[in-house]
Amino acid sequence: MSGTAVDGEAKAELTEAVGTPHLLTGDAISEDYAHDEALTLTGRKPAYVAKPATAEEVSALLRIASARGIPVTARGSGSGLSGAARPQENGLLVSFERMNAVLEIDTGNHVAVVQPGVTLAELDEKAAAAGLSYTVYPGELSASVGGNVGTNAGGMRAVKYGVTRNNVLGLEAVLPTGEILRTGGKNAKSSTGYDLTQLIIGSEGTLALATEIIVKLRPRLPHGATVLAPFTDLDVIMRAVPEILSSGLTPHILEYIDTLTMAAIVHAEKLSLGIPGAVRDSAQAYLVVALEEREQGRLDGDVEKLGGLLGELGAMDVYVLDGGSARQLIEAREKAFWTAKAVGADDVIDVVVPRATMPGFLATVRELTAAAGAGALGCGHAGDGNVHLAIFCKDAEKRESLLHGIFAEAMSLGGAISGEHGLGHAKTAHYLALEDPAKIALMRRVKLAFDPSGILNPGVLFDDTTGK
Amino acid sequence: MSGTAVDGEAKAELTEAVGTPHLLTGDAISEDYAHDEALTLTGRKPAYVAKPATAEEVSALLRIASARGIPVTARGSGSGLSGAARPQENGLLVSFERMNAVLEIDTGNHVAVVQPGVTLAELDEKAAAAGLSYTVYPGELSASVGGNVGTNAGGMRAVKYGVTRNNVLGLEAVLPTGEILRTGGKNAKSSTGYDLTQLIIGSEGTLALATEIIVKLRPRLPHGATVLAPFTDLDVIMRAVPEILSSGLTPHILEYIDTLTMAAIVHAEKLSLGIPGAVRDSAQAYLVVALEEREQGRLDGDVEKLGGLLGELGAMDVYVLDGGSARQLIEAREKAFWTAKAVGADDVIDVVVPRATMPGFLATVRELTAAAGAGALGCGHAGDGNVHLAIFCKDAEKRESLLHGIFAEAMSLGGAISGEHGLGHAKTAHYLALEDPAKIALMRRVKLAFDPSGILNPGVLFDDTTGK
Repeated sequence: MSGTAVDGEAKAELTEAVGTPHLLTGDAISEDYAHDEALTLTGRKPAYVAKPATAEEVSALLRIASARGIPVTARGSGSGLSGAARPQENGLLVSFERMNAVLEIDTGNHVAVVQPGVTLAELDEKAAAAGLSYTVYPGELSASVGGNVGTNAGGMRAVKYGVTRNNVLGLEAVLPTGEILRTGGKNAKSSTGYDLTQLIIGSEGTLALATEIIVKLRPRLPHGATVLAPFTDLDVIMRAVPEILSSGLTPHILEYIDTLTMAAIVHAEKLSLGIPGAVRDSAQAYLVVALEEREQGRLDGDVEKLGGLLGELGAMDVYVLDGGSARQLIEAREKAFWTAKAVGADDVIDVVVPRATMPGFLATVRELTAAAGAGALGCGHAGDGNVHLAIFCKDAEKRESLLHGIFAEAMSLGGAISGEHGLGHAKTAHYLALEDPAKIALMRRVKLAFDPSGILNPGVLFDDTTGK
Repeated sequence: MSGTAVDGEAKAELTEAVGTPHLLTGDAISEDYAHDEALTLTGRKPAYVAKPATAEEVSALLRIASARGIPVTARGSGSGLSGAARPQENGLLVSFERMNAVLEIDTGNHVAVVQPGVTLAELDEKAAAAGLSYTVYPGELSASVGGNVGTNAGGMRAVKYGVTRNNVLGLEAVLPTGEILRTGGKNAKSSTGYDLTQLIIGSEGTLALATEIIVKLRPRLPHGATVLAPFTDLDVIMRAVPEILSSGLTPHILEYIDTLTMAAIVHAEKLSLGIPGAVRDSAQAYLVVALEEREQGRLDGDVEKLGGLLGELGAMDVYVLDGGSARQLIEAREKAFWTAKAVGADDVIDVVVPRATMPGFLATVRELTAAAGAGALGCGHAGDGNVHLAIFCKDAEKRESLLHGIFAEAMSLGGAISGEHGLGHAKTAHYLALEDPAKIALMRRVKLAFDPSGILNPGVLFDDTTGK
């Protein structure tokens, strides 16, 4: 982490915008602000950290930054995995930690209005009190809703409820010029001009900063069950997934976990799932399927149907987990990133492909990984074709070359580099090398329409000539 | 309909692009091409109608139009209600009638790949053969999927399954410069760059022309029931809607029909719904709720629960319609536009508001309509807050002034001018007068990023200085 260039006049203006206690420079900036959770990036302390309390303060900050050409990076909880929240050394980090209020739980319209710094845990608590649920669960409950908007976060429940973009109805957002806009609203639909909400979601802080977010809530379903099915072959799981989704069952979780990942999870969490040793020894992968219903009787019917189906589809056995084990397993799966990190993974990626192409894709991944002398453990959102891989390969150059091959394969199958983590600083170079140049050029023109002076998160989604 | 200006050189180039039989000028252009179904616009015959067969031909057409500054309008089936498919007199109409193939029904990924000219009827037939369903039903089965993408069409089933934007995963689209891009894909999610798919959906032909569309399919649920509940008060219906949606029931249709609209529908379709005369006479409005399930037993349970709930919520009675009556009623509701047209409605609009604000909104509509000496009949997608109003007001100036008041009220409630029809030529002026100028300016810059020479559908979403 090298030095940063604080400009006295800029500091004075930024301080005036948010108030003295809320503008940090130099040693007042803690290490935490230098990075998110991306494994392959070195941290970079920004010149300034501002903690605005209102959209107007964000507007003032962006006007100053625009006028002075200061690069701006937005930060929610810093739990991102691709480095989109890593600031520029000479830049301004806008931390939304003080804009952390749930402004409204609207039970008539089934929406919540929140500030970007609200964590998923807090939103869930407030929604639950009204019998409602925000159904996006990227697995990290300390993540902020604003950060989720930035990366279009997904998570295990996306197979039933969709990702962030399917659950955000409107935004208040500040343009780099300081203009404060409202897009969308509490209404479920609109055919009235361009959908700027959808354009900003997933733009990783490169178009505008969201200062208020209207999210969809759904009735909370009280009855749930989790089923674990070991298989002798990962390909058999992959082929089972479309069949489960065609059956009319609507699981809200449909995950695969390969056997090494499962072993690491079970070991790290000291889980006892009641699976006999003989089964465990010959299982090559597991399918985790969770169902929820408003009535216990319906749930029981679903579980029975699912059990029969899994048997037909080649499961070695079917275990209906009790509440405690189920919760532990799901929580452990949510923490798969931390497990991967703990066992020394060098990177974690989340490629997405059309789900029916997963068997072939994973076979190619195995070949590429073996050829590189590297290792890869996998789990992922099988219902979405979203493959999470922990990559073990110390040599950075070899690793990036392996990743490039994996990304290229996913794109050749019609998929994409990231299903939910985003590109950030970690994967932008791969994207720029692999994507259709005409599409990148169009995206660049769209970026210019929002951010003519290019101050918002340079180096993310586009080349950054000011510093890698 | 006035004359059009055909340029010989342009005609020769356009003819070469699509082949002699597929480029029309002059009298070869039928009246149908001059308009869509918008009630308030006069038709305008274009100078040229081209019927391309491939994306490459569309690309060639757009390159010629760009070079020559010829305005271009896309047309699917011409069933739009806001005039987005009305061409320019000196312009080129690109009709997708020959690009009407369902290219693939992919049962593993639950998607269909279609050309833009495919009708909903044909897509439904092909999907049904695979036990799947495309769940966007704007009510006009002759509508094209491409047209639906243009207006972000919705329809009755949106309350459960979402509108077009929630069911389109990817596009092949041609930019005005002739570049052919692919956006999104068969994968359910992506966090890899801006979501250009979502940006193009609902852009009413102003950004790019879609030449291939990947849509989401779902398992077809075999058991359905339709329930009709008369109420003595429209406000009571509006207050019942959030309660039904909070109950955990997931109706795929949740419509209100006011008593005059119902009378017109029953009369036009010679429907017999089995409602006693005494009930009919005191009913002020009806709620139509349809449920579907994969098992009959579940459906029966849902219908029973719904019946009890409707009683608690103030329904005068609850009628479970038999299959024939149910189908007739739903079809008649789908044709409400044609009924409105037949009884002399002067315009039909589809304002959207947060659903819980519907009672207050409709009260204001009644006041505004009475003050204007006009009439308004209503029905709509109550679950979405999408209010369809047939407006009776012969005087165009008074009518536009009334519409302006209604639109302004919807926007002040956080809603929008159109929930699913789009703005087209019919409502763009209202939009430009009522929307935040900073937002319009941003949209205009986005438009320029796609269409620097402004050839795509001038006058739609933005001012048109070349001809109203």
